[in-house]
Amino acid sequence: MKVVVNAPLARSPFPGIQHVTLAGSPQGLSQLSIWHQVLAPASATPPHRHDCEEVVMCISGRGALLFNDGKENRRLDFGPNNTVCIPRNELHQLINDGDEPLHINAVFSRSPVEAFFPDGQPVLLPWAS
Amino acid sequence: MKVVVNAPLARSPFPGIQHVTLAGSPQGLSQLSIWHQVLAPASATPPHRHDCEEVVMCISGRGALLFNDGKENRRLDFGPNNTVCIPRNELHQLINDGDEPLHINAVFSRSPVEAFFPDGQPVLLPWAS
Repeated sequence: MKVVVNAPLARSPFPGIQHVTLAGSPQGLSQLSIWHQVLAPASATPPHRHDCEEVVMCISGRGALLFNDGKENRRLDFGPNNTVCIPRNELHQLINDGDEPLHINAVFSRSPVEAFFPDGQPVLLPWAS
Repeated sequence: MKVVVNAPLARSPFPGIQHVTLAGSPQGLSQLSIWHQVLAPASATPPHRHDCEEVVMCISGRGALLFNDGKENRRLDFGPNNTVCIPRNELHQLINDGDEPLHINAVFSRSPVEAFFPDGQPVLLPWAS
């Protein structure tokens, strides 16, 4: 049983994205990882997928997830009090094209988290997870 | 990909505990479940364990986890900006013996979540998870 005092947000190599890992393999977990991120206006993650389930919890601000439903490109908008469930291996891109910072918690069913570009190449995540 | 508009908190059969499931099997997840709960002052969960990993994220208020480290009974206090990691199958009891409501998110690495009393009997959870 461990209590973690959440570390402060830190800049990341992804432009406009601040990150802190709240829980994961550093705390002895293998099946859960929890991230807190802030996406500045006009910032976005790369398109990517994970080989685990993901849930994005919107704390404040507004954002959208871009994905393809197998037929066409789709856009799913979300805001405060919304929770977004992303199936395992579903390609997605998280964007903030609004005027306010987007604060989220992202929860994953694996730790460490792995991410892959659409061509299958791994995304080198710069943080412990 | 699904956006869920978080449902409001609802009373539960556990005295002083309000609950809402933010994500889980109703959204097609099998490896993640996320609950939001508010524990009123002087309320507590029963002692229990889960056969999966759990992370408790304190949103506001203060609380404590009671557990036994194999040698003695222990108490782990936490508050805002704290995250508590609970290993699989570790018996624990979440209490609020402070003066303010305790708001938490609890994240589990399985959906639906199962819980067990110390004697091994299942806790009949009254909510979808």
